[in-house]
Amino acid sequence: MQALDEARRYRESVGPAILASFAELLSIPNVAGTPGGIDRNAIWIRDELMRRGVRAAVTQIPGAAPLVFGRVDGAPGGPTIGFYAHFDGQPADGLAWTDPPFTPTLRDGRLEDGGRVVDWPGPGQPVDPEWRIYARGSADDRGAVAALLGALDARQGRVPQASLVFLLEGEEEQGSPHLGEYVGLLAGRLAADIWMLCDGPVHQSGRPQVVFGVRGIADVEITVFGPAADLHSGHYGNWAPNPAVLLSDLVTGMRDQHGVPTVDGLEIPEPSEAAMTAAALVPDPGDLGFPAPEGPSLWERNLRPLLNIRGLRAGDVGEAARNVVPGSAVASLDLRLVAGQDPVAVIEAIERHVAARGFHLVGEPPDAETRRRHRRIAMVSGRPSYPGVLTPPDHPAAAGILAAVEAAAGEPPIIVPSFGSSVPLHHFERLAPAAVIVPIANHDNHQHAPDENLKVANLWYGIDLIAALLG
Amino acid sequence: MQALDEARRYRESVGPAILASFAELLSIPNVAGTPGGIDRNAIWIRDELMRRGVRAAVTQIPGAAPLVFGRVDGAPGGPTIGFYAHFDGQPADGLAWTDPPFTPTLRDGRLEDGGRVVDWPGPGQPVDPEWRIYARGSADDRGAVAALLGALDARQGRVPQASLVFLLEGEEEQGSPHLGEYVGLLAGRLAADIWMLCDGPVHQSGRPQVVFGVRGIADVEITVFGPAADLHSGHYGNWAPNPAVLLSDLVTGMRDQHGVPTVDGLEIPEPSEAAMTAAALVPDPGDLGFPAPEGPSLWERNLRPLLNIRGLRAGDVGEAARNVVPGSAVASLDLRLVAGQDPVAVIEAIERHVAARGFHLVGEPPDAETRRRHRRIAMVSGRPSYPGVLTPPDHPAAAGILAAVEAAAGEPPIIVPSFGSSVPLHHFERLAPAAVIVPIANHDNHQHAPDENLKVANLWYGIDLIAALLG
Repeated sequence: MQALDEARRYRESVGPAILASFAELLSIPNVAGTPGGIDRNAIWIRDELMRRGVRAAVTQIPGAAPLVFGRVDGAPGGPTIGFYAHFDGQPADGLAWTDPPFTPTLRDGRLEDGGRVVDWPGPGQPVDPEWRIYARGSADDRGAVAALLGALDARQGRVPQASLVFLLEGEEEQGSPHLGEYVGLLAGRLAADIWMLCDGPVHQSGRPQVVFGVRGIADVEITVFGPAADLHSGHYGNWAPNPAVLLSDLVTGMRDQHGVPTVDGLEIPEPSEAAMTAAALVPDPGDLGFPAPEGPSLWERNLRPLLNIRGLRAGDVGEAARNVVPGSAVASLDLRLVAGQDPVAVIEAIERHVAARGFHLVGEPPDAETRRRHRRIAMVSGRPSYPGVLTPPDHPAAAGILAAVEAAAGEPPIIVPSFGSSVPLHHFERLAPAAVIVPIANHDNHQHAPDENLKVANLWYGIDLIAALLG
Repeated sequence: MQALDEARRYRESVGPAILASFAELLSIPNVAGTPGGIDRNAIWIRDELMRRGVRAAVTQIPGAAPLVFGRVDGAPGGPTIGFYAHFDGQPADGLAWTDPPFTPTLRDGRLEDGGRVVDWPGPGQPVDPEWRIYARGSADDRGAVAALLGALDARQGRVPQASLVFLLEGEEEQGSPHLGEYVGLLAGRLAADIWMLCDGPVHQSGRPQVVFGVRGIADVEITVFGPAADLHSGHYGNWAPNPAVLLSDLVTGMRDQHGVPTVDGLEIPEPSEAAMTAAALVPDPGDLGFPAPEGPSLWERNLRPLLNIRGLRAGDVGEAARNVVPGSAVASLDLRLVAGQDPVAVIEAIERHVAARGFHLVGEPPDAETRRRHRRIAMVSGRPSYPGVLTPPDHPAAAGILAAVEAAAGEPPIIVPSFGSSVPLHHFERLAPAAVIVPIANHDNHQHAPDENLKVANLWYGIDLIAALLG
């Protein structure tokens, strides 16, 4: 690929300048929710894009962090690629960092391996791809912004084959509360053939990966009510409804041994053959400290929904335990949903499931009269966050991205049909028929933790990848 | 019954003196665990017994509260009855009481009904049986001590038909930690045909009751271990063992819908026909704020063991809930055991049951190597407290007590084959072939709470009952 070769030559000749520009960005504090730093990041990025001849703007919904968006026009008739990254970061407690989080520091290797501070290289000096850039937001996710700028630089004004629309978010670490609203607002300007989210790390083996799906998420809390006050278990333990027992029984019946929901009437979409085949090829996680389960691989499992019990509370345990039938019991669940499942409908199915088990459903703790009328009383409260997304790994719009990744990385990527975790990828379904996640950062980047860092080789990979896509 | 008539005439003639003596006892603080007051109670009671010509002594195991014990010799060839009561009481926060807890106060009715303070009556003045004596320990359980003294007074030195051995405890409210040791120490002196425990209230209808059994008790805590640290539920929710799920499943399978344990290999003794017949005749509890269950009555259920879930803990619920597979889950159980069940054997059966469900049992939180080898790891820790007791309601030794209760109360008692709750009645099985509980106090005595009170009619009932037994 010509564009890729050009980008490589370019970054080899001006590597120190690319690092210097990145360091300038990283020196601007970017803790999510702190308007001063976030605003300065947005303006710096917009200005750098415009300096490269790109139409870029900052916009801001009241109460939201500013957003940078824009467009690079390619040759007529070429594809349009959407590019997402975020420039906000997690909080950074300077005391826990080896180097100050907003004083970008170059080291000749990992801190864990004794990596030592290196002077930022001057023009013409060599850049070692094993070096690491330490700063908050270097890997998660301002490295993707730097890669975009580097790839645009490498074109040196030449019109690319593909057009690029982009959206750079400033509140991802707060849960992207306005992303849907921003996407709705800009839908007309940001339509593309495929959207590519550059966030997260590559595979721990160092191999590149392209992720074709994520699961959605909904939270549900089920409270089962027993006696109005804790009752003496000796006198009434065989007589009163025990909410801890009723709740245990209820939640046990709501998932199979693999965690897949078995809620009445809740259909579980079957993953496609292509997705299952791809899943079987993804390496399973290594040693997590417990034996792997028998049966399907982690990645096959992640193509199915999950009903997770994240918390249980009833009465007391340990020294505080008292001999009572507890007055109530609470289970907190998070549901990971696959594409095709509507979070609201899932919560409604759970409500019906509970009601079908003989529970009288209430919207608030029951009054004395309600308690007197019903032995089984439950409150189900749900928060439907967002649905899952699954792009078929053989989607035609993804072929160009897979080719660019392979060219940039020098090896074919691991095709991850779906992460088990949740990312609001669904917003991008309004902007393109397909959306994928293409991580750039090294897996050992200390994301969200002190000493976050990006390996220079991964920045180079990002530049090469975007250059290949544009070319 | 001649003895009963004599007792009634006696207490009618010297009622004010009986109340004055009782008030003297009640003015001595008796909070369990406070040696000064407890010692003074013991000595006062021993002195009063000796003043009535009874062989009585105070004894004290190091570290224990003092115990008053002794013997009233009856006519040769007569039966021997054991009499138990306790003179210690629950703590009393004077600020929460209407009258000071250790300034005995006479009122002409219940405080709830506007009962007003009445002067203690002088010699020859009438005593209204509706009056109430307010003081800590008036009902629970120094009223029984006063009844014993009153009944002995009423004999005025005449040798009774029956012999009486007695044991008056000073640390019942602390869980009777030395009762077994005291009983062992005094077993040779306190043998009887039947032991009678005077504690607790009569039936809420006001009818007398005789209780032929209690359940034993054992506590068990089950901890199930999951990942060494909370794991991201999105990434690993279908992959990691979820201890909240495993634990819910485990405890759900350990009891039937009535709370009866369904633990592997744990035999459930069948209650006798006589006990079941008696149980069916006991009135069920009234409105407890929830609908009564279908099936057996409360009292039939109390003849079977119970596995109660008194507490559950895993992860977090509510706003604190995080999207994780929690690292561990804990269930706290109390088991109510029926006669014939060995608490240690029950705990061992639970351990075997858990192991048979595929759990690797550990004695302390598992190390990394153990976690790596086993997906299911549980810790079962048990505290076997004591076994249950069940005296057949038609036990010949109880016939005399039933007759005395009926004579004293003027109506046949409710025969309660077993309380569901736990009392260390089993100690008395070393002293007699049968042991029963014969409550004296009014049911609305505010036991363990502020404004504890004994109705004068119930003190009279206690005196009459003991007099009838002696006669």
